[in-house]
Amino acid sequence: MDIKITKPTLLIDKNKCVHNIELMNGKALSSGVKFRPHFKTHQSAVVGKWFRDFGIDAITVSSVTMANYFAENGWNDITVAFPVNIHEIDDINRLAAKINLNIVLLNPESLNYLEKTITSKTGALIKADCGYHRSGIDADHIEKIYSLSNAIVLSTRIEFNGILAHFGNTYSAKNKEEVKEIYETSLSKLKHLCHELKGRSEKLFVSIGDTPSCSVIDEFKGVDEIRPGNFVFYDSMQLSIGSCTQEQIAVALACPVVAKNKERNEIVIYGGAVHLSKDFIEANSTKIFGYIAEPEENGWGEIIENTFVKSLSQEHGIIKASDKFFNKVSVGDVLYILPVHSCLTADLMRQYLTLDGEKIEMMKK
Amino acid sequence: MDIKITKPTLLIDKNKCVHNIELMNGKALSSGVKFRPHFKTHQSAVVGKWFRDFGIDAITVSSVTMANYFAENGWNDITVAFPVNIHEIDDINRLAAKINLNIVLLNPESLNYLEKTITSKTGALIKADCGYHRSGIDADHIEKIYSLSNAIVLSTRIEFNGILAHFGNTYSAKNKEEVKEIYETSLSKLKHLCHELKGRSEKLFVSIGDTPSCSVIDEFKGVDEIRPGNFVFYDSMQLSIGSCTQEQIAVALACPVVAKNKERNEIVIYGGAVHLSKDFIEANSTKIFGYIAEPEENGWGEIIENTFVKSLSQEHGIIKASDKFFNKVSVGDVLYILPVHSCLTADLMRQYLTLDGEKIEMMKK
Repeated sequence: MDIKITKPTLLIDKNKCVHNIELMNGKALSSGVKFRPHFKTHQSAVVGKWFRDFGIDAITVSSVTMANYFAENGWNDITVAFPVNIHEIDDINRLAAKINLNIVLLNPESLNYLEKTITSKTGALIKADCGYHRSGIDADHIEKIYSLSNAIVLSTRIEFNGILAHFGNTYSAKNKEEVKEIYETSLSKLKHLCHELKGRSEKLFVSIGDTPSCSVIDEFKGVDEIRPGNFVFYDSMQLSIGSCTQEQIAVALACPVVAKNKERNEIVIYGGAVHLSKDFIEANSTKIFGYIAEPEENGWGEIIENTFVKSLSQEHGIIKASDKFFNKVSVGDVLYILPVHSCLTADLMRQYLTLDGEKIEMMKK
Repeated sequence: MDIKITKPTLLIDKNKCVHNIELMNGKALSSGVKFRPHFKTHQSAVVGKWFRDFGIDAITVSSVTMANYFAENGWNDITVAFPVNIHEIDDINRLAAKINLNIVLLNPESLNYLEKTITSKTGALIKADCGYHRSGIDADHIEKIYSLSNAIVLSTRIEFNGILAHFGNTYSAKNKEEVKEIYETSLSKLKHLCHELKGRSEKLFVSIGDTPSCSVIDEFKGVDEIRPGNFVFYDSMQLSIGSCTQEQIAVALACPVVAKNKERNEIVIYGGAVHLSKDFIEANSTKIFGYIAEPEENGWGEIIENTFVKSLSQEHGIIKASDKFFNKVSVGDVLYILPVHSCLTADLMRQYLTLDGEKIEMMKK
């Protein structure tokens, strides 16, 4: 790489990203499901274009602010996969007037408010909770979901577009088998719900979408749409779950080495919680805030053995290093950290640098 | 408060901030030590002015980028309390040419590089590690510190300005007594080091500065300067340590309620890891990502009992609520979250809103 790194810089390997998009898009195509990637991971119009090159024209976002940004950048079919926030009704109305907008509903209170205030046709999906227990109506509460869907159907400007679920508990899986297990259990709840609801309505669109499931499962049966987001970059957490290989991790934080401590085999880098985020993975009750990849001529390569980011404060990162790696590293070197959670790292960094030295902007906060 | 909140907003209570500054400044004055507050917490020229009103004219920052920002905003005595990053030599030279700049050294490699490249007189402090084990030369390694200080003294453009320490292990204290214990142990190491070094040099300036110590200790003996930062806002973590009272917490994240789950007494807010950061405190092996304060006519009041933020994902926050609080809250309400780590929350939010509805900008990232 012919890039001069002076401070923490989020590098993006476009080839790896495009390969990740190609794989997931291919899987959606072969399963015959709609691919509506979640853009909260990259938050960038430029990265968005890499998706468009595959013919993708519908996306997911996690906030109305993000929907605004991507709508301004030419996306006109957007699902805001977050329980609708009634305080943003003005933005929702503006957006729904110009694009195909889907919002997420999970309670009659929000629906009642929207019925009185919404001015343009807006799609709504009901969020079903299939075991993750973050948000959504419990998938077993069929009557509650049925009654909310009926209320939506009766409303004038809101169109009932189906059920949305997020099997987010796959993020706590330790391996592919656990991901599959959670996927199957969650899907069977969802299928049961759909079966019960379908008895009463003709069609029922079903959308799911977490990166571990979408990466580990080969064929999506009984769903109409997938919405993974993180897969475009992957990260150390997804690697530990088994969602990706090392080679698929498409972002790395380049960090200058500022000190070494021989007594503890520790390397101090300029790169901390304000760059990587405080998310961690646990292995044998050790907290890991990132792995370190070998530098290569054009990017980064394999993960360095027995070496990891052991702690982060605001701007400091401390790497616990193997003897071999410790001795190889000098003050002033630049190390490549594979983030634990690339969505949060990207959100903090707000800009990417390609391996060709091109800056890629993100949505302004 | 006559402020319309539509999405997560970082509120700042100026009166509480000014009171916190007044207290800490008074303590420094009565101890006869220099007060060089750390500005990494607020990262704002406007908040900086509140310090200047107390006659404070020297500050600490955690990056060269931040030093640039505050130098542009009229601060001309700045210590960058982070191991010097040799890749930023151009910025260091530009800064040192116009302001009184102090950098932190902890290895001969960086010094050797600087000796060849530095163009203006720059002050240097040696970082001593008194038990925190993040960075710095172990305070027991007197010869190593002596030899580095001698090398600095011999250099042409770098001025040896003393020893800098950070007793960051106070952040893991569970109460005031533990803070005092860590402070005393660390200080005695530092005093021993200074005693040994003083035998060989005339004066030795000593700078310390973590918020728990500076909040809990009444009189600073044997040090010349304090550099606390977090105290300007405090937060739920400092409250749990015993560094502050509830009333001193000067920032709160205002978050709209988007859903409620009666089965689990959980409230879903728009406000997640990209707003609060993933830092948490642990109480009885429960992770707490923030407390919730009662809304009051002009700001927020007491912390609500048996209620806390139990988990965060990118944009979602989940509050575990007491029966009483759960029943009081409706979808659409705005809740006031006291962040676990206000430095990281401010860094994520990049803007404050005063209780009078005035926007306060921060340094651009």
